[in-house]
Amino acid sequence: MFEIKLDDARYWRDCISAIGALVDEGLFNITKEGISLKAMDPSSISMVSFFMPAKSFSKFTIDKNTSIGVNLENLGKILSRTRDDEALVMKDADSKLSMEFIGAARRRYRLQLIDVKKGAEKEPNVEFDAQVEISGDPLKDILKDASLLSSYISFKTAKDQFATSAHGDSGELEELHGKDGNIVKKVEATKNADAVFNLEFLENMVKSCPVGNSVSIAMKSNEPLKLSYKIGDADISYFLAPYMED
Amino acid sequence: MFEIKLDDARYWRDCISAIGALVDEGLFNITKEGISLKAMDPSSISMVSFFMPAKSFSKFTIDKNTSIGVNLENLGKILSRTRDDEALVMKDADSKLSMEFIGAARRRYRLQLIDVKKGAEKEPNVEFDAQVEISGDPLKDILKDASLLSSYISFKTAKDQFATSAHGDSGELEELHGKDGNIVKKVEATKNADAVFNLEFLENMVKSCPVGNSVSIAMKSNEPLKLSYKIGDADISYFLAPYMED
Amino acid sequence: MFEIKLDDARYWRDCISAIGALVDEGLFNITKEGISLKAMDPSSISMVSFFMPAKSFSKFTIDKNTSIGVNLENLGKILSRTRDDEALVMKDADSKLSMEFIGAARRRYRLQLIDVKKGAEKEPNVEFDAQVEISGDPLKDILKDASLLSSYISFKTAKDQFATSAHGDSGELEELHGKDGNIVKKVEATKNADAVFNLEFLENMVKSCPVGNSVSIAMKSNEPLKLSYKIGDADISYFLAPYMED
Repeated sequence: MFEIKLDDARYWRDCISAIGALVDEGLFNITKEGISLKAMDPSSISMVSFFMPAKSFSKFTIDKNTSIGVNLENLGKILSRTRDDEALVMKDADSKLSMEFIGAARRRYRLQLIDVKKGAEKEPNVEFDAQVEISGDPLKDILKDASLLSSYISFKTAKDQFATSAHGDSGELEELHGKDGNIVKKVEATKNADAVFNLEFLENMVKSCPVGNSVSIAMKSNEPLKLSYKIGDADISYFLAPYMED
Repeated sequence: MFEIKLDDARYWRDCISAIGALVDEGLFNITKEGISLKAMDPSSISMVSFFMPAKSFSKFTIDKNTSIGVNLENLGKILSRTRDDEALVMKDADSKLSMEFIGAARRRYRLQLIDVKKGAEKEPNVEFDAQVEISGDPLKDILKDASLLSSYISFKTAKDQFATSAHGDSGELEELHGKDGNIVKKVEATKNADAVFNLEFLENMVKSCPVGNSVSIAMKSNEPLKLSYKIGDADISYFLAPYMED
Repeated sequence: MFEIKLDDARYWRDCISAIGALVDEGLFNITKEGISLKAMDPSSISMVSFFMPAKSFSKFTIDKNTSIGVNLENLGKILSRTRDDEALVMKDADSKLSMEFIGAARRRYRLQLIDVKKGAEKEPNVEFDAQVEISGDPLKDILKDASLLSSYISFKTAKDQFATSAHGDSGELEELHGKDGNIVKKVEATKNADAVFNLEFLENMVKSCPVGNSVSIAMKSNEPLKLSYKIGDADISYFLAPYMED
């Protein structure tokens, strides 16, 4: 049994949106530390890792560690109806997740829980060579620039610079971001890194990054990338395998 | 022969939009009292009843009672082009409805009139047990909440409360509105009422309710509902048969 | 070899959008006077003529007259990514058009040039009888009004008036614009002109007219129309053959 309260339901809506951008269903683990979830996308080329600490909640009561399997699309639909001034109380009740929105009205949803196979959701074990910190909004623009030409984008670090490129039948694109600008905040590399990634996955990953927040990208040449940001106190991290041209 | 003038054409546009949300064609009756229309939707599970008094018009000249049959989709298209500062003069002319918009420019449309079978458009004769008065905008939200789970919504009155619910494969929803809140203004019931309705029809019915206006809902268990609101001086009422689960 | 710089890239974006509304590909002629293009649309019932003087650019260096063939859809996509505060430097480089956007970041696109057949893009030789000057925004509204009824619109000048009309199955429309209003600025006719045009072409032609700008329409009965406006210092003119009812 658990009873969890958030003073601003939109916060949970945004977290679920960030997870649901990549995976259809997942297993939330609720422990006294907080709520966590790790899941691979159906194609197994990416995974998401989420953690929201107990302190983010105004009430966090659990009697024992619990796991609940959730269809993220259905959960996302319910949360999309969040009004601006609502608190959210979540409880488990008869194989359902009860979600009560408390604002001008009281709405209570009961979401059917589902069986989610517990897989070996292990984060890839990479010793990253390079770390880039970049503003989320310009990063969305950079991905959109590239998507006009290709389905893939190349990320490259070189000294104090972060470079992206894309090429397709209609032309080529190169972008160069020095850390002196106000787009890239930090480039730290023990060794330069260079890899190509699927743009659609990257776009889904950064979509829920709150306006004004920074994104951290950890890279190693031709290895999976780790892309992370904060939604309030919650940590959201994605891993994405590189695209290897034949 | 008639000649009718409205100082603000948008007013007529909004009324036609409210009627056209439910029916494709209709017969406007023009008498010295005003303009009225009653029509059933093509599936015969709902009807609309409209009345706009002569005093709403800055000019209202008729020589005898007249009925004109109109394709509401075509009329709605023409009215969708209304600019913000236009008056509207309507006249009959050679089996056409002449509509002159007078603003920065003068635009004159002539709409082909059509034959509309005069049916037995009688309003359902129900002695309602319960009356609910609710703000139009939150009502639109309540319908949208339910539409994420189902194609139907249950309306229920109980004492001083108005309750809605919906259930589907992905979960269940219950909403409770006391009359102390600022959503439900009034709940008056000689007997509690409870019925299930088609959401798409309800959504079309409330769509044209002006922002800030209230909606009146009259109910009796498992009987048609009557839903009414004002557009300026005009009265618009809808009747909707309940959905009976087999 | 050429090197051309615009301080505000959005200016070039809007010009390309005006050309691309009608034609898929075109040949830009770059001479010391400036940049020009003439092209017919694929159906050959309209043409576009564009000229942007060298003085519009903050840098305009060419060593000899050059023609470059461009796919306007691909060019338009690249320009759609223009940010608000960017300069644009264009150069030729190895059968490609290099476009460097300089703002918070540096983005460099290379667009593949294409072979464009040089046709006999001669502007129609018409001695126009009537000239109308009309605000671009109300003209867009006038075209939209007509498009609800028909795929064609009739333009007519008569004395000091510009009249438009359209008719279809659902009704008829007439609009009358005197030059005393604030929509039509000027009507000058040595002889009245009257012709019918395809609305979709007209809508594409005026789409890129900057907000607040005027459009000039030159007409002669049942002859091609010439429709022109300015985008900054650039001149954009369209010719459109009249529609002849059988």
